[in-house]
Amino acid sequence: MAELRKDPLLERWVLIAEERAEKPQEFDDRPTVRRSGNCPFCEGSELETPNEVLALRKPGTMPDAPGWRVRVIPNKYPAVTIAGRGADEAVVNARSPEVPGYERQSALGVHEVIIESAVHVVRAGELSLAQTTDVLNVYRARLLALRAESNLRYVQIFRNVGEAAGASIEHLHSQLIGLPVVPTLIIDEVSAALAQFQKLGNCAFCELFDGELAAVSRIVEVTDRFVLFCPYASRFPYEMCLAPRKHAADFDSADDATLAEAAALMRRGLARLEQVCENAAYNCVLHTAPLESRACGHYHWHWEILPRIVKAAGFEWGTGVHINPVSPERAAATLRAAAVAL
Amino acid sequence: MAELRKDPLLERWVLIAEERAEKPQEFDDRPTVRRSGNCPFCEGSELETPNEVLALRKPGTMPDAPGWRVRVIPNKYPAVTIAGRGADEAVVNARSPEVPGYERQSALGVHEVIIESAVHVVRAGELSLAQTTDVLNVYRARLLALRAESNLRYVQIFRNVGEAAGASIEHLHSQLIGLPVVPTLIIDEVSAALAQFQKLGNCAFCELFDGELAAVSRIVEVTDRFVLFCPYASRFPYEMCLAPRKHAADFDSADDATLAEAAALMRRGLARLEQVCENAAYNCVLHTAPLESRACGHYHWHWEILPRIVKAAGFEWGTGVHINPVSPERAAATLRAAAVAL
Repeated sequence: MAELRKDPLLERWVLIAEERAEKPQEFDDRPTVRRSGNCPFCEGSELETPNEVLALRKPGTMPDAPGWRVRVIPNKYPAVTIAGRGADEAVVNARSPEVPGYERQSALGVHEVIIESAVHVVRAGELSLAQTTDVLNVYRARLLALRAESNLRYVQIFRNVGEAAGASIEHLHSQLIGLPVVPTLIIDEVSAALAQFQKLGNCAFCELFDGELAAVSRIVEVTDRFVLFCPYASRFPYEMCLAPRKHAADFDSADDATLAEAAALMRRGLARLEQVCENAAYNCVLHTAPLESRACGHYHWHWEILPRIVKAAGFEWGTGVHINPVSPERAAATLRAAAVAL
Repeated sequence: MAELRKDPLLERWVLIAEERAEKPQEFDDRPTVRRSGNCPFCEGSELETPNEVLALRKPGTMPDAPGWRVRVIPNKYPAVTIAGRGADEAVVNARSPEVPGYERQSALGVHEVIIESAVHVVRAGELSLAQTTDVLNVYRARLLALRAESNLRYVQIFRNVGEAAGASIEHLHSQLIGLPVVPTLIIDEVSAALAQFQKLGNCAFCELFDGELAAVSRIVEVTDRFVLFCPYASRFPYEMCLAPRKHAADFDSADDATLAEAAALMRRGLARLEQVCENAAYNCVLHTAPLESRACGHYHWHWEILPRIVKAAGFEWGTGVHINPVSPERAAATLRAAAVAL
């Protein structure tokens, strides 16, 4: 059973997931990148994957058969133990039997794959606007559905594009991991925002986004509802943050028009990145309020787009301090200047 | 000038170092890996590098000429601004002029490269015990010398082996970055240890190492003075921690016999890793007390050995939670079973 363990000093959770080691390439975290032709994520290969959880499909088509646009399946090599399978052995908040101060608990949760296209595409820029909007709609649908799972406290949605970003199968897909704990990084962010809210009565993120809009120098693009900018303390070259300008704690509270606008801006942002660094690997990471903080006044959902063109090395792992050779001001100027016709 | 910026919510420093982007490969964090033959780190290529800061050399040989065993040079593409060069423009603890809450300061510091062998070797296992001991001696000498630099608050020593670990030039080397701030990760670790010290009167690390010795299951090897084990909340498969069993806050307080024993155990630990995962990339990271906490009762120096055989992806960057497919108990059993004749 997958286990969450907490570092006794740093209070940092890790997921010990030995089942993951049974994947085809034992010590690579993800299965082999496969070229199209024998891709398990392409339309027509539905029986190579676990049964779908959700799909956007043509009326009249059957589950786990062709006819879909976006398809959600359980991850074949989950990083967590799926609730219901062996959940009777679950341990919650236990002390380690051996060493005082060690904490662990069973990692009961969900781990799903969101296949973003029926045809074999590799880069997000190959998706049409309608497809990109479909994908965001599916994220929202899964987040809403997972609110019913009482054991979950946080759901992380992320997308790895390119091998350097930890990509698995190259066919464009996102993943979703639901956890029975709130990750320490999210707790830190939420707590800092809550402290400001309690002190000043406003959302720290709203304030920060307003500050960026006023400062201008790190803005990549602004629309009616969204701002896309390079964060002041960017860890990665060309790192971007996409956020709604109006306060909203939960991604899954966004309406259709809001999601369509987010999709359009994300698509243009990634097209800019692609133009500046061709074939750059990157991660997209959604930050949304922990499930228990729904509709709170102090958190604000946003996407982080993290290009992976510089490798984290000993310095970064030792100190937590990233070395970024491109200032966010220069990154924003370069990304703004990129011609995108979308 | 290189700049330290703090994330307004997470209080996480980043180093914005635009000079780094001028390196041969603009968007790779390190220069090209070069095969031997035209290697700037080999004996005889001394004039291709900046002037040496320190070297262990044959009596009678000249600086920046052949005859050395270990050689320390300034990094040609430093991640920090070297004190003395443009230091008059330095800014300490400034608010950003644009957005309230943003903090920055000039990243005045040192960035050095420790070339670990005069002949072209690529893996730490190719060093003799005498050479490994030389390297640890040089680390100690540089730490001791840098205590005189009043602007430094933390010195991070690290070694990147293999491209997946962020290795630069393949010729075996370590690096040292001295910073005018204590990184948040180190502050968190030191603060947690200090809290336990104040509450219970003991060193949290001493307690933890004793706990590991008693539990046995995660121990790789024990010597008179050292313990080598796989941490309970290992982030990476086959992650190891090497620590002195007797309390010691500062690496540079270790005497010759202690360093020789540390070198021998580190060498055997890396040989075990090499046997379990041939050619695995890895980082070695020294954690030692911040300069201002010298000889304190609550911190305890240790090395982290971080194999980089699984890539950090969107989930890890989004949550800070690492997925580790090899439990430390299984890792320790496998590493223990590896035959090493050293």
